[in-house]
Amino acid sequence: MPQRLVVVGGDAGGLTAATNARRLRPAADLQIVVFERGPWASFSACGEPYFVSGEIAEFDALLIRSPEEFAEQGISVHLRHEVTAIDTAAHRVTVRDLESSRESTVDYDMLVYATGARARHAPIEGRDLAGVHEMHLLADALAVRSVIESDPRPQRGVVVGGGYVGLEMAEALHVRGLHTTIVASRGGLLGGSIDPEMSEHLAERVRALGIQVDVGHRVERINGEGGRVISVDGEGRTILADLVILATGTEPRVELARAAGLRIGESGGVWVDDHQRTSAPDVYAAGDCAEVTDRITGRPLNLHLGTIANRQGRVAGLNIGGVDEVFPGVLGTAITKVHDLEVSRTGVTEAQARNAGIDVAVATFEATTMAGNWPASTSMRVRALADRATRQIIGAQIIGGPTAAKRIDTIAMAIWNSMTVDAMVNVDLSYAPPFSGAWDPVAVAARKLQAVLGGVG
Amino acid sequence: MPQRLVVVGGDAGGLTAATNARRLRPAADLQIVVFERGPWASFSACGEPYFVSGEIAEFDALLIRSPEEFAEQGISVHLRHEVTAIDTAAHRVTVRDLESSRESTVDYDMLVYATGARARHAPIEGRDLAGVHEMHLLADALAVRSVIESDPRPQRGVVVGGGYVGLEMAEALHVRGLHTTIVASRGGLLGGSIDPEMSEHLAERVRALGIQVDVGHRVERINGEGGRVISVDGEGRTILADLVILATGTEPRVELARAAGLRIGESGGVWVDDHQRTSAPDVYAAGDCAEVTDRITGRPLNLHLGTIANRQGRVAGLNIGGVDEVFPGVLGTAITKVHDLEVSRTGVTEAQARNAGIDVAVATFEATTMAGNWPASTSMRVRALADRATRQIIGAQIIGGPTAAKRIDTIAMAIWNSMTVDAMVNVDLSYAPPFSGAWDPVAVAARKLQAVLGGVG
Repeated sequence: MPQRLVVVGGDAGGLTAATNARRLRPAADLQIVVFERGPWASFSACGEPYFVSGEIAEFDALLIRSPEEFAEQGISVHLRHEVTAIDTAAHRVTVRDLESSRESTVDYDMLVYATGARARHAPIEGRDLAGVHEMHLLADALAVRSVIESDPRPQRGVVVGGGYVGLEMAEALHVRGLHTTIVASRGGLLGGSIDPEMSEHLAERVRALGIQVDVGHRVERINGEGGRVISVDGEGRTILADLVILATGTEPRVELARAAGLRIGESGGVWVDDHQRTSAPDVYAAGDCAEVTDRITGRPLNLHLGTIANRQGRVAGLNIGGVDEVFPGVLGTAITKVHDLEVSRTGVTEAQARNAGIDVAVATFEATTMAGNWPASTSMRVRALADRATRQIIGAQIIGGPTAAKRIDTIAMAIWNSMTVDAMVNVDLSYAPPFSGAWDPVAVAARKLQAVLGGVG
Repeated sequence: MPQRLVVVGGDAGGLTAATNARRLRPAADLQIVVFERGPWASFSACGEPYFVSGEIAEFDALLIRSPEEFAEQGISVHLRHEVTAIDTAAHRVTVRDLESSRESTVDYDMLVYATGARARHAPIEGRDLAGVHEMHLLADALAVRSVIESDPRPQRGVVVGGGYVGLEMAEALHVRGLHTTIVASRGGLLGGSIDPEMSEHLAERVRALGIQVDVGHRVERINGEGGRVISVDGEGRTILADLVILATGTEPRVELARAAGLRIGESGGVWVDDHQRTSAPDVYAAGDCAEVTDRITGRPLNLHLGTIANRQGRVAGLNIGGVDEVFPGVLGTAITKVHDLEVSRTGVTEAQARNAGIDVAVATFEATTMAGNWPASTSMRVRALADRATRQIIGAQIIGGPTAAKRIDTIAMAIWNSMTVDAMVNVDLSYAPPFSGAWDPVAVAARKLQAVLGGVG
């Protein structure tokens, strides 16, 4: 008799776990059953804003693999099936078929909890008006695109929320020709993810692209007329709008886990050990619903990033497959763009460092994306952080034109390896005028930090 | 009395040494005198092909800093002054003013030998014909651009040499509208720098851009008529040409060093220790003329790269300034492009690994520069190498469309830190559809190597 792996949630975390377990254990040895409450599995949530903008033209391009393709691997994916209870003692889940509303139970030997995250509902009056959309699910993307392409086309868009999804949706509306305003709370654009000074710089550069940026005003009410949105009110100002996108953050789906008695971590995500095991026997968790450990501070975090979901899913799947694989924590590396303006970050911000008791050194400087004499070169701003005690690089943020932001990976690799800024200076990075200056901004970051820390620079 | 630093050669290696020494020691403590035989100091040799193509429009954009700017720092730069002898016992150089032909002697307390490299003269008959140009000095770039812009404009260009400069010059001529052929010897395009399989792939993709690539035929003779080039002959084939660029490699300028009794290393460059000290007391060397150590094999190399010259110059200058700074060796990271096609490499090639006795694992795969569903995404090929004994990543080569090649820095950072491919897999790299797939090709390289090495992948 084969064992049975039940996967709760059919996206990055769960399906990556499933495919990795399958690589190591054939169907004769391990049955794999995936329950997904939504109508699609294995999709690119990160692509949704680009489907709205039309840059990703076809909806199918958001779908990565079909249930039929998983079936070929012996992975049985059940769409519109919601797991409503997990009995960790009996190793049994209750599943509801959302089409028929019938419930059944399924026994498992191992379970992967990968329910992901949902949009966080900010307490905003008027959120149910026509023309107001959340942005999280594929269905949201379809709905917004449909509105944008219907007559009369919306003219004025307001995006509530200055996070990654907010920025990307503001770009999407702007690409579509809407007069677009992004409203961010006091934290500013990407607040919390990048330092305030960088956030302000980002706001300036986004404004220069023709997108209105309204920072520091909480949206309190959405006003309607005849059931349709007409404007957004917040702390004394009113912005006209016929399309409103709510992108006020996401939160992990942990209710089912909590009801099943799984330990919930400080971060709000499902607690896991370094093998992605939860507190319940034979139950793993991966993806947006699961907690991760910050490699710099050692603190628990709950981040909603596809990269982390994939890597956690891989580790869970390999362990289920019998390989002793450890998930080594995260730096929270993230990247996005608004038109040609790129933004990225990795490691800790200044505030995160201080909160963790790190005596932090900060260097912020202007560089160019390519050699100074290269015509396509644009300005970029880099903020880099080091630990004064260890002289190690611990974080960086980049804002700039094309090719600026992917450099964050080079810095992430340095941080991952606990490099001192002194060691970083001499690393053999590539140079040619179309790509960077002779000292790449990554090396310059190390030199600038050396100068701050006391050293030759 | 201040000490005196004499710098022989006024480009990246020498001037970086000078400015770094100056940072640490004021003029009252250290006099700095630079002798440069050419008419310019501190210029961007790497920018020359782009000046020829016109992408860098103005000649002045190739000049980084003027002698006047150095003078403001208390660094005295003498152009058209050639050091003709170094008496290491007496700590004295002989200098010839190339304008007046007068010779004089100058005493030094410390000396930096930074004479750079020169074009290597391949034994090709007819190289003195009009329309045949070497490509190394700024003067060469000026001459070629002048030819390209004069009437009648040349129609058919042949670039002899498939190295970095050859590729860049082929692009430049093609940008200028010439029917362009690049002739590479048996090593192929970037032969020696990348593995044969990648070299062949590069040739295919360069051909697809409309540039003729002729690999495996040595150019033996350049034919002329009335003193002007009309064609190029090599091993049985003739290629018509009214402009020929000779880019057959470069060699270090070490004659003066040899005459002064400085030890010349196995690589042909001036031997230096890890503080950039030569075998003579108080004499340092930096840049193309100096030897470097390959971090993977421990072997001496002589590479002609601006990045290395800058880093070596910095180390020499800091040591002269009283800081104990070590130059930790190189990976030979390099990057270039032909139109939108990018190429990069770092670490060892397969041949270099085998020659050094490394039991090498190789993974070559196709990836995409951005997410598969992103419209601007293009194909890229990655070749990655690991040491089977240590499972460490030791080299990589990338060929692909826009944004492909700069990823080499992330891999260089991993190699620099002696990471195993197993550790690389989980590094927190950035992802969004406009930038990469959820598994960046850098992480995929690690997974592919795991699979080759035996492991989960």
